[in-house]
Amino acid sequence: MNDSTPIRRRVRTATGGISDSRVNDAKTQSQYQPYKDAAWGFINHWYPALFSEELGEDAVEGIQICGIPIVLRRVNGKVFALKDQCIHRGVRLSAKPMCFDKKSITCWYHGFTFDLETGTLVTIVANEEDKLIGTTGITSYPVQEVCGMIFVFVRADDFPDADVPPLSHDLPVRFPERSEEFPHPLWPAAPSILDENAVALGMHRTGFTNWRIACENGFDNAHILVHKDNTIVQAMNWVLPLGILPTSDDCISPIEDEDGPKGMMQWLFTDRWAPVLENKMLDIKVEGLNGRFYRTSVVLPGVLMVENWPEEHIVQYEWYVPITEDTHEYWEVLVKVCPDEKAQKDFKYRFDRVFLPLCLHGFNDCDLYAREAMHDFYADGTGWDNEQLVSTDVSPITWRKIASRWNRGIAPPGRGVENATKHSPIKYRRLSEGKAPGYFVEKIND
Amino acid sequence: MNDSTPIRRRVRTATGGISDSRVNDAKTQSQYQPYKDAAWGFINHWYPALFSEELGEDAVEGIQICGIPIVLRRVNGKVFALKDQCIHRGVRLSAKPMCFDKKSITCWYHGFTFDLETGTLVTIVANEEDKLIGTTGITSYPVQEVCGMIFVFVRADDFPDADVPPLSHDLPVRFPERSEEFPHPLWPAAPSILDENAVALGMHRTGFTNWRIACENGFDNAHILVHKDNTIVQAMNWVLPLGILPTSDDCISPIEDEDGPKGMMQWLFTDRWAPVLENKMLDIKVEGLNGRFYRTSVVLPGVLMVENWPEEHIVQYEWYVPITEDTHEYWEVLVKVCPDEKAQKDFKYRFDRVFLPLCLHGFNDCDLYAREAMHDFYADGTGWDNEQLVSTDVSPITWRKIASRWNRGIAPPGRGVENATKHSPIKYRRLSEGKAPGYFVEKIND
Amino acid sequence: MNDSTPIRRRVRTATGGISDSRVNDAKTQSQYQPYKDAAWGFINHWYPALFSEELGEDAVEGIQICGIPIVLRRVNGKVFALKDQCIHRGVRLSAKPMCFDKKSITCWYHGFTFDLETGTLVTIVANEEDKLIGTTGITSYPVQEVCGMIFVFVRADDFPDADVPPLSHDLPVRFPERSEEFPHPLWPAAPSILDENAVALGMHRTGFTNWRIACENGFDNAHILVHKDNTIVQAMNWVLPLGILPTSDDCISPIEDEDGPKGMMQWLFTDRWAPVLENKMLDIKVEGLNGRFYRTSVVLPGVLMVENWPEEHIVQYEWYVPITEDTHEYWEVLVKVCPDEKAQKDFKYRFDRVFLPLCLHGFNDCDLYAREAMHDFYADGTGWDNEQLVSTDVSPITWRKIASRWNRGIAPPGRGVENATKHSPIKYRRLSEGKAPGYFVEKIND
Repeated sequence: MNDSTPIRRRVRTATGGISDSRVNDAKTQSQYQPYKDAAWGFINHWYPALFSEELGEDAVEGIQICGIPIVLRRVNGKVFALKDQCIHRGVRLSAKPMCFDKKSITCWYHGFTFDLETGTLVTIVANEEDKLIGTTGITSYPVQEVCGMIFVFVRADDFPDADVPPLSHDLPVRFPERSEEFPHPLWPAAPSILDENAVALGMHRTGFTNWRIACENGFDNAHILVHKDNTIVQAMNWVLPLGILPTSDDCISPIEDEDGPKGMMQWLFTDRWAPVLENKMLDIKVEGLNGRFYRTSVVLPGVLMVENWPEEHIVQYEWYVPITEDTHEYWEVLVKVCPDEKAQKDFKYRFDRVFLPLCLHGFNDCDLYAREAMHDFYADGTGWDNEQLVSTDVSPITWRKIASRWNRGIAPPGRGVENATKHSPIKYRRLSEGKAPGYFVEKIND
Repeated sequence: MNDSTPIRRRVRTATGGISDSRVNDAKTQSQYQPYKDAAWGFINHWYPALFSEELGEDAVEGIQICGIPIVLRRVNGKVFALKDQCIHRGVRLSAKPMCFDKKSITCWYHGFTFDLETGTLVTIVANEEDKLIGTTGITSYPVQEVCGMIFVFVRADDFPDADVPPLSHDLPVRFPERSEEFPHPLWPAAPSILDENAVALGMHRTGFTNWRIACENGFDNAHILVHKDNTIVQAMNWVLPLGILPTSDDCISPIEDEDGPKGMMQWLFTDRWAPVLENKMLDIKVEGLNGRFYRTSVVLPGVLMVENWPEEHIVQYEWYVPITEDTHEYWEVLVKVCPDEKAQKDFKYRFDRVFLPLCLHGFNDCDLYAREAMHDFYADGTGWDNEQLVSTDVSPITWRKIASRWNRGIAPPGRGVENATKHSPIKYRRLSEGKAPGYFVEKIND
Repeated sequence: MNDSTPIRRRVRTATGGISDSRVNDAKTQSQYQPYKDAAWGFINHWYPALFSEELGEDAVEGIQICGIPIVLRRVNGKVFALKDQCIHRGVRLSAKPMCFDKKSITCWYHGFTFDLETGTLVTIVANEEDKLIGTTGITSYPVQEVCGMIFVFVRADDFPDADVPPLSHDLPVRFPERSEEFPHPLWPAAPSILDENAVALGMHRTGFTNWRIACENGFDNAHILVHKDNTIVQAMNWVLPLGILPTSDDCISPIEDEDGPKGMMQWLFTDRWAPVLENKMLDIKVEGLNGRFYRTSVVLPGVLMVENWPEEHIVQYEWYVPITEDTHEYWEVLVKVCPDEKAQKDFKYRFDRVFLPLCLHGFNDCDLYAREAMHDFYADGTGWDNEQLVSTDVSPITWRKIASRWNRGIAPPGRGVENATKHSPIKYRRLSEGKAPGYFVEKIND
């Protein structure tokens, strides 16, 4: 038996000296209570729903965001989004799309027909005179399509059209308009999906953990370890530091202008963060540092921007779109300005051959498993109570506070939808068929 | 952004004029509260358990109805049914059938032996003198076998034998004895499984939703849309209307005679229901109507009769037998009187070649998915609170009220049985092996 | 309809005469309330974690016992065990083992590094100066390796090293030191894993039920029926009795010496238990009894010893190690003293050819399914309330009382770990991939 006194898990006993912004004490925690409550995501925000190419003319698809079932239909090129749950008996319209004209979508079950634009119940196929018609409907969601991506403003049923903010308020800051405020000493300007000639290439897939856990990994500066053996790192001969440490309290800038996105920018690869090259106790030393200089920021409702990544003139965006309280749709999108067809083709070629396999997979696959590895700890509340944070966790703490301050609403738990009931027999049947719960509605095959 | 005011999901704002029977207001809802409480089914009713051919001489099978595990054994042609849960340590007798004589069934685990007729603990294999013997036992269930089907009276433990009603009280009304009351202007007399020379051919399978949701689809007149593309419809050159609408409050007759089944009969294809041939707004019109004239009724504990379907002289029965609160065993049975062997053979041939693939599958597969598509909406109570019903929903509302009034008891949630515990590790193991939860006990293989 | 009055499940109406120790009345039940509370197992006890050969030099494995995630690492032949949950973001260290030296284990995610011996946070790879270092850590678990098995003392975070009992206190009684107290009239001395030259051969696998249900099957004398058709029984020409019955209240001796294991010894194959050879009512008679004379005992925290089984000079040990409240790791180990290499080789040969296929599988597979068959009955509490015990159940009742009296703590429900959250999406994903929840951590594959 070992004689020394074991030190067991217990409350941290730090004794001052550390900057307040880095302490996760009860006062700090109370400042991000809204974030802790947002298991089902923040509502009244813009989220990516599909890539444009996933919804052809006249196509119908069903997805779920923040516990809300959403059906999308494209007519004459324009995309419409409605709540994907018939007011009558609650089936999803998208399960078996039925459309009789270009202005409406009809429920395949009893013929309830809704106006695509407003969601109003405009007729019932075999019941034209019913008194319900015109008096009720399903919620409609504003849609904006840009750069090959379809964005939906996922809102509460009573959120007024007049208050819908522009998409740009839920996207990362845009350059060069914010260059003065957020100068980028080491790298070229970073393109936005809103830029002219911007091209977005990427993928999305379901991550099996809460969106916040995923998001916090996205801009986490302290997990470089996970990536050290990645193929892209080795292929590029990058030599990563062991990590980077904040050197001052202004290592992170809040992004809180009234008329724009809300989030934070991390001053990575400036003197506000110091690379760490060795650990004496463990006798580890990094030689010949050959870094990849990137900068990360994150804005509501949970959008990551990695500038200058995975190479110059490219930005990687990531979204962690809440599906339920324990699944999210993970979006990885690379954006580059391609002024002509040749540039587009080259970008697409390099995306297919290098970035998709080695970065979006490869490198980010590691992030995905790290995120999922945290799930059990946070799923039952244990993590929120027991996590012991350190100085590098200034990033998630700052984010949690800002997100708590500026979100437009906390999504209530999903009701009456798949996965709201954890033990649905339909889920069990699908599991027995080898299908995990995910983002898309399963279409009915006659 | 769209300027018009979106109409979102909200409480219906109908303003009078509609018949009371069609309004699903708080008062109406309170009239069917017992039905809303009957998630696990109605107890003290007759349910089909197995087709006769599924239980050969000396065979033992285990099933579950209304959350109650039931073991069936056939001896000298007669079927016995007992609670399938040993009083000792609770294992299911049917998991590994052990019978030492023709009067009893023995638990394979510790030898507790129960009288087949009464359920009394008559001996313990290696403990003949135990004081428990003769003082306790398991509940027995009355059994009746008719027309190739085994029916079990699924009762509460304290329901007296003397009060067991005849099977006919839990079957649809029988003709010609009810012909005066329910004349059938357009079709021939409808056979009953109780008729001499009646032949029942059919199938049963597990449906992954609550039994009520399934049942309400069975007699639902407003979902003809779902079936318009079905192969049987096209093969027969039927031209279905878009739907049918009730034209008066007597469109449905309650079946409430003291000494018989309780339910309702719908006067379809009479002047009390009008076929709908067009929808002007959607510019749909049905030409050359060539209907299939059927009539539907439903009686407790949830038995559908479709007369004159899928062809003359045939009746389709359906049962939605509750297994748990979210699964049911779906029975589809066609009945025809076949006075001789030739007629039986012909019916069987047509059943195998036409009715089984195109009707019980094909046509009714569409009903099954429609039923399952409603599950999520109702499973967490959302549907019961939020459904917005219309004039055609006079059918489910009438049924809910009648079922609330006449059922013989609300089954309590299953206890100590498979699927009562949603997250049983055994369920998880089976899911990992590709097996969905269902109706039959999984037999143990040594 | 059957005229006799059915006897349904009800409270037992025994009327005296039976010894108190056999009655499972409210008073008796209150005496084993702690046992009923111990769904997640007893904590502060020694449990087998791995066979030595499952953890090679420098290997790392993660398991879960009593809801506690545990990581094991072997360095210079010595095994260390720590709580397998990083204090930072809660990931399991074992999911992707990372070790920079022989004294520590590092979290693969953010580089938190823990002393193998004490669990203290000794450094963070890229954050050497963080104030958290040295002030906190993860719980360490005493380890003892004996006879090819690694035992871990699974303790509460605040259980002091000084109070850790010797392993022998959580193992069955040892002979010949206890021979006087527990003479074994019919069989040779029984080896202990603590004996010089003892060899332990066995296997472990996950059982899908609560550990108590499994354990009570282990020493249950009344289920011989389950085994009558087993291949080993037929191969050896054993003729088993139908069962055995206690003949007096001293049929079981408590093992309660202050300085040793706590449990009970059953005086099987003595005049305190009578073999049962026939059941007159069922007309069953055993002829030419050719028994296998064994003796069983069980001690905390749930260790079975079957002496003289499956043949002379061998003991079968079984452990039912709680993983969660509804899964356990089932250990089956045969122990024999093999003084030389020849004896070891012979034992191994016979183990591989006979004992492993016919006993640990074969015979004990029957026990495993019997245990799992009880799960549903007990999982929701039904079994604990409704089981109707008989005279042979003096064994579980005695065990329940002794375990309640002498356990060193009731494990609290697991928190923040796999399977604590029943409906983890990660579990669902794994089920969809055909993986049932189990004992080992799933390693991350880059």
